[in-house]
Parts: sequence; C-alpha cells; structure tokens
Amino acid sequence: MGNTDLDFTSISNNNNAVEYCAQRVAIPPPQPFLKSLKSSLKETFFPDDPFRQFKNQPPSRKLVLGLQYFLPILEWAPRYTFQYFKADLIAGITIASLAIPQGISYAKLANLPPIYGLYSSFVPPLVYAMMGSSRDLAVGTVAVASLLTASMLGNEVNASQNPKLYLHLAFTATFFAGVFQAALGFLRLGFIVDFLSHATIVGFMAGAATVVCLQQLKGILGLEHFTHGTDIVSVMRSVFSQTHQWRWESAVLGCCFLFFLTLTRYISKKRPKLFWISAMAPLTSVILGSLLVYLTHAEKHGVQVIGQLKKGLNPPSLSDLAFGSPYLMTAVKTGIITGVIALAEGIAVGRSFAMFKNYNIDGNKEMIAFGMMNIAGSCTSCYLTTGPFSRSAVNFNAGCKTAVSNIVMATAVMITLLFLTPLFHYTPLVVLSSIIISAMLGLIDYGAAYHLWKVDKFDFIVCMSAFIGVVFGSVEIGLVIAVAISMLRLLLFVTRPRTYVLGNIPNSMTYRSVDQYPVAASVPGVLILQVDAPIYFANASYLRERISRWMDEEEDKLKSSGEATLQYVILDMSAVGSIDTSGITMLEEVKKNVDRRALKLVLANPGGEVMVKLDKSKFIESIGREWIYLTVGDAVEACNFMLHSCKSSSGPTKIKSDVAQDNNV
Amino acid sequence: MGNTDLDFTSISNNNNAVEYCAQRVAIPPPQPFLKSLKSSLKETFFPDDPFRQFKNQPPSRKLVLGLQYFLPILEWAPRYTFQYFKADLIAGITIASLAIPQGISYAKLANLPPIYGLYSSFVPPLVYAMMGSSRDLAVGTVAVASLLTASMLGNEVNASQNPKLYLHLAFTATFFAGVFQAALGFLRLGFIVDFLSHATIVGFMAGAATVVCLQQLKGILGLEHFTHGTDIVSVMRSVFSQTHQWRWESAVLGCCFLFFLTLTRYISKKRPKLFWISAMAPLTSVILGSLLVYLTHAEKHGVQVIGQLKKGLNPPSLSDLAFGSPYLMTAVKTGIITGVIALAEGIAVGRSFAMFKNYNIDGNKEMIAFGMMNIAGSCTSCYLTTGPFSRSAVNFNAGCKTAVSNIVMATAVMITLLFLTPLFHYTPLVVLSSIIISAMLGLIDYGAAYHLWKVDKFDFIVCMSAFIGVVFGSVEIGLVIAVAISMLRLLLFVTRPRTYVLGNIPNSMTYRSVDQYPVAASVPGVLILQVDAPIYFANASYLRERISRWMDEEEDKLKSSGEATLQYVILDMSAVGSIDTSGITMLEEVKKNVDRRALKLVLANPGGEVMVKLDKSKFIESIGREWIYLTVGDAVEACNFMLHSCKSSSGPTKIKSDVAQDNNV
Repeated sequence: MGNTDLDFTSISNNNNAVEYCAQRVAIPPPQPFLKSLKSSLKETFFPDDPFRQFKNQPPSRKLVLGLQYFLPILEWAPRYTFQYFKADLIAGITIASLAIPQGISYAKLANLPPIYGLYSSFVPPLVYAMMGSSRDLAVGTVAVASLLTASMLGNEVNASQNPKLYLHLAFTATFFAGVFQAALGFLRLGFIVDFLSHATIVGFMAGAATVVCLQQLKGILGLEHFTHGTDIVSVMRSVFSQTHQWRWESAVLGCCFLFFLTLTRYISKKRPKLFWISAMAPLTSVILGSLLVYLTHAEKHGVQVIGQLKKGLNPPSLSDLAFGSPYLMTAVKTGIITGVIALAEGIAVGRSFAMFKNYNIDGNKEMIAFGMMNIAGSCTSCYLTTGPFSRSAVNFNAGCKTAVSNIVMATAVMITLLFLTPLFHYTPLVVLSSIIISAMLGLIDYGAAYHLWKVDKFDFIVCMSAFIGVVFGSVEIGLVIAVAISMLRLLLFVTRPRTYVLGNIPNSMTYRSVDQYPVAASVPGVLILQVDAPIYFANASYLRERISRWMDEEEDKLKSSGEATLQYVILDMSAVGSIDTSGITMLEEVKKNVDRRALKLVLANPGGEVMVKLDKSKFIESIGREWIYLTVGDAVEACNFMLHSCKSSSGPTKIKSDVAQDNNV
Repeated sequence: MGNTDLDFTSISNNNNAVEYCAQRVAIPPPQPFLKSLKSSLKETFFPDDPFRQFKNQPPSRKLVLGLQYFLPILEWAPRYTFQYFKADLIAGITIASLAIPQGISYAKLANLPPIYGLYSSFVPPLVYAMMGSSRDLAVGTVAVASLLTASMLGNEVNASQNPKLYLHLAFTATFFAGVFQAALGFLRLGFIVDFLSHATIVGFMAGAATVVCLQQLKGILGLEHFTHGTDIVSVMRSVFSQTHQWRWESAVLGCCFLFFLTLTRYISKKRPKLFWISAMAPLTSVILGSLLVYLTHAEKHGVQVIGQLKKGLNPPSLSDLAFGSPYLMTAVKTGIITGVIALAEGIAVGRSFAMFKNYNIDGNKEMIAFGMMNIAGSCTSCYLTTGPFSRSAVNFNAGCKTAVSNIVMATAVMITLLFLTPLFHYTPLVVLSSIIISAMLGLIDYGAAYHLWKVDKFDFIVCMSAFIGVVFGSVEIGLVIAVAISMLRLLLFVTRPRTYVLGNIPNSMTYRSVDQYPVAASVPGVLILQVDAPIYFANASYLRERISRWMDEEEDKLKSSGEATLQYVILDMSAVGSIDTSGITMLEEVKKNVDRRALKLVLANPGGEVMVKLDKSKFIESIGREWIYLTVGDAVEACNFMLHSCKSSSGPTKIKSDVAQDNNV
C-alpha cells in the first residue's frame, strides 16, 4: 500500500482559494480502564454533579451542606422574612380551601373513608415543607393514583366487604411507594421516570381523566351498585343495565354544580388574576350543597351524603402495615406502580414551576423527599400523596414564596380535623363527583395531542395507545403499552439508522445530505454516505446491506448515464457516536465489498471513541491511516487529486492492482 | 428580534482567506404522510430491496424470477457443468464421512436413538440443495441445538422412561422451529437474529461447548446414571458422587481417540491443504473403535456400544407430531429457541463463506429455506438441522462448488442407511464422546474473547455473562442474560449520550472535540457543544442537566481566569439524527436557561428530520432562523462578528435587552 501513501498535506486545491493544512484524525490519548469506568459511571448516575459544592470545604461546612442537602428548610429558613410569610399565608389558605373538598373526593375515589383524604393533607405537606426543594409544589392526593389504588387493590380485596383489610393494604401500598421512591432517589436511578415520555403522560392523563369521570357517573346518577372495572365497556354496561335506579334529584344537583365549577374554571382561565374564583369554587360548592341538603332534607330523597366524620387528628397506623398479609405482593405492586406515576407527576410539576421562577430542582433529591413524605404518611393514616398539578398551579398563582404555604395548608386542615368535621355531615356525594369531574376535564389536553400529531406522528401513536389502553383496558395496560411502544422506538432508531448521500454545497467545502439540500451537487466518481447512528450489533447487518445497495444504485446510475465510473466510497462517520465489535466486523466486510468492486473506501471524521476501537481492532491499519480524513471536504479533495493524477499517469491501474493484492490475501 | 436579523451572507473573515457564501440550513420539502410511512416501512422490512430485479419485467419473466427466488436450484442448475460435479463429488464424500459419525453422536447428545442422526442427514440436505442460496453450507444436526433439545424437553419428559413421547415431542419441536424460521423469513423479520450480537455468540458458543464436553464425561467414564442438569455444579456432583462406577477401559479408549482426533485437527489447522485428515478422522476413529471392540469383545468389559441400528430409509413421521399433547407448549418453546439459535449459526456461516467467495446471501430467503427444510424434516423422522460451521468449513476446504455436495452427502447417507447400519453395532459410545469433545473444543474461541476484551470492554462483559450463564445456569439463562445486557447497552447509549466541547483546529474552519484533538483551541466567549445521539424522551432530562453543567463550568472557568465572559452557546446538532417532542421541549428549556443567563443559543447543522420537527413545533421561530447555521464554522464566525461589532458599538446592550424581552414573554 506504500504507493498510495502520498502526503496530502501539501495538496492545494485550485477551485477554492484555501490553503489547508490537513490535520490527521487523532486517536484520543488512551485512558486507564478504571479511570474511564469511573467517569462513565459518574456520567450515568451523577450527571448533575451534586457533590460539586462539597469540594474544597472544611468538614464542619460539609456537615452543614449535607444537612441542607437533605433538609432544604435549613437553608432557606434563616432568610425567611415577614414579607414572604404574608404571601405564603394567602397562598396556603387558598390551597386549603381546594385541598379539603378534593381530599374528601379523592379518598372516595380510592374507596377509602373520606376522613383519610383529610389526614393525607395534614402530615405529608409538613414533611415535604422540610425536605422538598420546590417552592411552589402543593402536596396532596391525586385522582389517578387514587383510582389506581382502588382498581389494583380492589381486584384482590373488596373495600365494602372488608374495609379494614382494604385500608391496611392501602397504607402498606403507600409505605412501599415511599420506600421505592426514596430508593430511586438514593440509588440515583431517577432516570427511570424519564422513560415515561411527554407523549405517554399526555395520553395516559387523558385516559385516566376519562376513566375517573366515568367512575363519577355512580355519584352523579346516585347509583348504589357499580362495576369494579374501570374500562369504558364495563362502566357503560353497569350504568345502562340499571336505568331504573337513576336518581334525577342527584343528577340535576350534579349538573348544576358541574356547570358552576366549569364556569369558574373558564373565568379563571380567561383572567389569570381571578385564579381565586376557581380555587374557592369547590369549597363554595361544598358549603352550598351541604346547606341545600340540610335545609331540604334531600338526604331522605335519594341524595347520598358523606355522613359522620370522626373528629381528631391522624391516628398512628404503623401497626396497621400489613407485612404479614397474604396480599402483601399486591400491596407492593400497587405501591411501586402508583409510586412511579406519582413521582412522574410531582417531579414534572416541580420542574415546570422551577423553570418559571428560575431555580433548580434536583430530581433525585425530590424523590427522596417524596419517598420520606409517603413513608411518614403511611405511619400516620395517610395514603399516597404527591404534588398535583392543579393544586400547585393554584399555589403558584396565589403568589406562594416558599414551602411555608404547605405548612399553612396543613394547619388549616388540622383546624378542620379538630373542630369542623361535623360540618361535612350533610355534604352530598354528588358535589364531590362534580368537583372531581371538573378537575379531570382540565387534564384532557386536546391541544397537546394535536401538537404531537403535527410534530411527531410516532409520539402521537404512543399517546393514543396510552389513551386507548387506559380507557378500553385498564390503567396498567395503557401504561405498559405506551412504555413498550416508546422503547420500541428507541430500538427501531438504532436498528434502522438512516443513511444519506451527501453532496457538495456550492462554493464551500461543506457536504450535506442531498435530500435536505437540493442544491448539494454530487461529486463525480465519489459516493459520499453518512451514517446517522452508532454502529452496533443490532444494525450492523442492515448497514452492510444498505451501503451495498447504495453502491449498486450509484453504479447503475452512473452506468446508465455514461458518466465517469465510481472510484471512491467515503463514509462520513461524524454521527457515529459509538461502535462495538459487531460494527467493526461490519466495516471490515464493507471494506472487502468495496475492494471487490475495485473501489476505495475512505473514512471521514470518525469520533474519539470510534477511532480508539478502530485502532485497537487494527482496522485503521487495514484501511490505511492515510485514508481517514478529518472532514468530508478533505477526503473529497484527496480523492479528486488521486482521480486527476491517475488519469494523467498510470494511476488507476496501480490502485486496482493494489486492490487485487488485497483480495488475494 | 428583527434587530439581530443581520445578513451574515456578506461577512468575510480576514483570518482565513475564505469567501464563503453562507447557505441557510434547509428544511427538506414536506412529504405526504403516507409516502414517508411507506418509505420507512420499506427501509424497515426490505432494506435489501428484493423486488428490484422484478421491476420492468414481463409477467412470464416475473414468474420465472419468482420461482428462482424460492428455488435457487432452478437458477444455477442449467449452468451446472461436469467440472463442478467432480469438485462437488469429492466434497460431498468428505462431508459424508464426517456427517455419519457426527450425526450419530449428536443424536445421542439429544437423547434420541442414534439412527435419527442419520435420518437427519438425509432429507434436510436434499431440501436445502433446492431452496438454499449458499453454495458452501453443509446441512446437518448441531451440538448446541441437540443439547438444548435434550435439556428443554428433558425437563418435562424423561427420555429413557418415555422414549416414544420424547421422540414425538422432538419432531414437534422441529416442526415449530421450521414454522418459526419460515415465518421470520416471510415476514421479513430476519433482523431478530441480529440481536444475537457477535459477542453474545462467542460467549454462548464457548459456554455451550463447555457444557457439551462436560456431558461427555458420562460416555468417557462409562457411567450409567447421570444428572439431567447441564450446569457445571450438577455435572461435577454427579461425576464425583459415583467414582466407584468409573470404567478405566472406557476412559483409556476415550483419551486415546481424543488425542488422535485433536492431533488430526492440529495438523489440518497448520496445513489447510491437509483438511481431509481431520475430516476423515471421525470415520477412521469409528472404524478403528468398532474393530477394536469387535476383536476384543470389550462390550462385555464395560465399554458401551451403539448396538442394533434399524436398516432402511426415514420412516414418515407426520402422524407423530404431537399437536394434542399436554406438552405442546414445551415443544413450541423448544422449537422457537432452538430454531433461532440454529438460524443464527446457519446464517452466520452461510454469510461468512459467501463473503469469501464473493456472492450474496439473502438472510430472509435463507430463513425460508431453513424453515422448509425443518418442516420437511419433522415429517420424515428428522430433528432440528442447520448449517454447522465445522461441516461447512470442511465442505469449503474440500472445494465444493454448489449445493450438489449436499446431494452427494445425502446419497452417501442413504447408502449407509440402506446397507451399512449393521456395521455400527460394535461402535463404542466413548468414540462418539471423543468425536463430540474434539468438535466442541474448536468452538471455544479464546482469541475472539481476548479481542473483545482489548477492543470493547462492554462486549467482553456481554460475552462473559453469556458464558457464565450457560455454564453455571443453563443454556436459556445464558442466552437471556446476554441478550438483555446487549439491549441495555443500546438503551444506555441513548439515555446517556455524550456531549463534547468543540474547539477550532488551527488554520481551518473545522471544529472538533477538544478531548480527541488536544490542538483544538476554544473560541473566547463562545461555548461549542456537540450532542452525540438522537434527542429522545429517554435522554432529554439528562441532556438538559448536562448542558446546564457545561455552561456552569465554562462560566466558572472564565470567571476564575478573568477572560472574556461567555456570550454564545453553539449546539452542534450534526450527530443528532432524530428528535421527538420531549427533545424539542428540552431544547425550549435549554433556550430559556440560556436566555436567563443573558447568553444567546445558536444551532449548527441540524439534520433534515430535526429541522422539519423544529419547524413544525415553532422552535425555529422562537430561536430565530438567523441563529441556525450550516456549519459550526459559520456559527462561530457570526458570533465573532457580533462580539466585535458589539464591542465597538452599543451591541451587547441590544442583545441583552432582546433577551430580557424574551424573558418577559
């Protein structure tokens, strides 16, 4: 091969007045195995570099920073001012007025006694206020996790026949959700939540909201018996099989309140300053509804009411955790699934508001906070809590400054628990259903789905399959389908990477895809291909076939047009981020194939990792160091130089005999 | 933003004597949804474009081509010459001498009566000769699939207690293997085989070879009872718990033959022209061993022999297929797993030899051929066959020209079945064990494992986990672990893509990673980052954090060195092959973050698909079309121009006020 080892550094191209000094493609300096292992582990688990602030600090300072890491309240409390408190007080009272009716409603959705919804709005917000790093998150129960708890536990234990066991399993599930969330945070595995893509969440939320609304038909129509299934088919069958049981009083009341709530939401949406109208509406509905029932004695005419609520704070429930129960595995499974979904919502919400207010949320730290809050909750008669979007948005709009608004809310709930529970005796269930439906309608984001369809059809498919899976199957089925399709997409990207033919952008040394830039002109005698993904075992065979087909097509085209024959194949490796041994074998096979056609293979711009591996596997030796260029432009220039000097001398024969020698080896 | 919309096309940089005419980054022309769907389906399932030769042909020619597609013999038979036949005859006889003893040995390994090994070397090669497209593949049974059949079926049915049911299940498994293989071919799903990476196969084969050798301790030591487990622990326990049963006569005979076989292999390896020595050695061993036993009556002194073999050709076995059996699912599972492994070996072997001889193998067509061959085999008392490497290598070395060598081999086996089976009566089992061990030792490829370690540590881990899984667990466990780790690697690549800081290669407009090119110089005031993977939901959060960290580090560095402050962040998108809606959201967040720091975000060279999506999602509008450049060089030049003109005029304020406006929106 020595013959072709010309020094291209001295070539000067006359078309462009460029004097370029071709830099060889570098092989990065070798790194010790342990060092590179350490750095890649760090990138995988500590991409946010949480230890940076601990560097070069005295031990006492490190201790303080460590405490502040786990209890952010220690960091901001000393700087807390009365100004802040005024803002937090208003925000806290506003969210309490939303939290109390929502807490009762969602507890009903989870098939738990309503009082547990209030308990869950007391302890967890206090824990979060100490440990959480978001300033805008308002803690509480959420509809989707409540529904999931009801459907997953309800499959095993009937809540109305065996309420005590069901309640204990709900605490146990909450405990495991907390443990799982905290473990994800401690083990820095927060990226698992990332596998719920935006598209999945849009579809999943819309589906869950639909399902939750369907469940409310029970309350609205005043039905006593209802299906345990959550899919639309079972619910519709259940509703229409008992038309004679429908209660018109209940339905009329429900529709009125729903209209009222939707109207207030609409007003607040149009004028964000009037956010308090929709924030106060649920409590107003509860008060109005209760008064109405109390005055008209409607509870005796088919309107179901909440009934007796026990006075007093959260009773301890540590001894209720059912670790020995035969249903333990169900509780663990429920805990893990609801825990992940609650995390996904909570972290997404926290991150969105942090983005608005320009501060940072550490995902893993938040997971630890959520986990601790749920573990503490499970020991104090609370079920799963997270940071719901609706409540946090109200908190944000009400001008909260710090997590103190959560403390204010918890205090308001405490006062309710201690003194005001008898007031809810006459609250009609249908008002709670209206509150849930009105909250759920806000979760169906048609706009986002349309945006997905417009921008990315595949994301739309993921979104719709999550939606359809949830509505027609179950919440879990929808989730599993959507995650599976999302993963399939990742794998498909790697298994079927795109390859592009590049052409020269006029008056430049730049080469770009001829599909994207119709002005790009192909170079006679040279086929330039770009591979758009890492070359791995999963795509090596495909790329071999595809590159071979490109060469066939190019040769056919040139033959039919009678132009110059193909002489060089340049592979642009800029986008090949990584390669494995199957990929190197593929390149070796491509080289054999290219040689067999009496062409020459040239590489352009392989990256650092790729160069290291090509070097170690001796592929660089086999292709020849002089056939690897820093840019496609350099490679084309060298090829052109060879082509022209070959035409005038005995060049081509020399190259072909070289190739023939290669073949014989 | 109109203020900053300068026309950079007229900028000329004085440092480089380049007159460049900046071409705008193009958005590829929009494609109708159905057309792009069709083209991506075509790339996914027909990357090799099998219909190309059918284009523009009359219907009669299409029919002929179609027939030739499924029966390649129709294509090459008319061109067959006597010259070819002479070569094929020699090759066929050579592989027959290997096939007969190997067939008997592997049938024993599969716990089937030895005669079924001979049956399996008769019908399948004939089918393959008509349908296969490889000229060098020699068809027969293989050790790994035989062992897998024995271990998977043996878990359910004891072959010695219920031989008939076991046999029928083996046929049924073969039938389903054939159906599965043919279905993969018809459905163009051949890429599933690609998920067995080279590293997986090296480790898996070495593990399987070790396990098979361990199983032969039964034959070598002349043991009557043996464990059904295949893992090293069970086998060792079984061997050493019955030391009093060891037969020294058997062991001595076994070691002698093993030495002989290994020696012949060594000779043939050193001198490829003497390939026939190792090819003939197994048959020679069988003849020598049988003679020895016959003359010394060793069968009465603890040397087990094959015994009676039935004369006659394959009996039909269609009615034996146990579709109604309660073990049907076991048979289906066994069929699918052994079928995939057999395919992987057969296709890899066919492709390797085709590469040598410069012809093409169509993977999907080969799958159909393998499938048909096994379906036909399952109806004629054969069990799973494929193209084993050892036999095909002998075929290749013996100078075969076409698949006629398979027909010659089948004829030789037919003659054996019709007339010569009584000759195997005194063949000692220990000779068969030696033949298997000697063949298996060749499958343990230390060199390849060392190469993996040297080139790619991750591939080495995959390889070793396959090996350890097979040896200490079971064949299936090893396979599942290795495939899972390989997939994890793909996902890890996407979830944790690398980001590089780029610098300017001196005297050029080229920007490359400063890690790879230490000469690359950073540009003052400009941070250039390259993202090395598609931006998907799975890595969007990570990239947001990582880019933010790069900016922090750069700002810290500049602050401590007192240099110019950071003004521009350029994202080089060359290697971002694709983006989804989560990725676009991430870019929007990065833009907000950059704006908040009063910096300016600039994109360089986004690809076609990325541009389409950025356009549809209005991100291009939000960043400003004038901040997207064709190359990093253009982007840096524009930034430099802005920096310098800003210094001399009131520029910076203008930019900052622009940013401030953005923030307020």
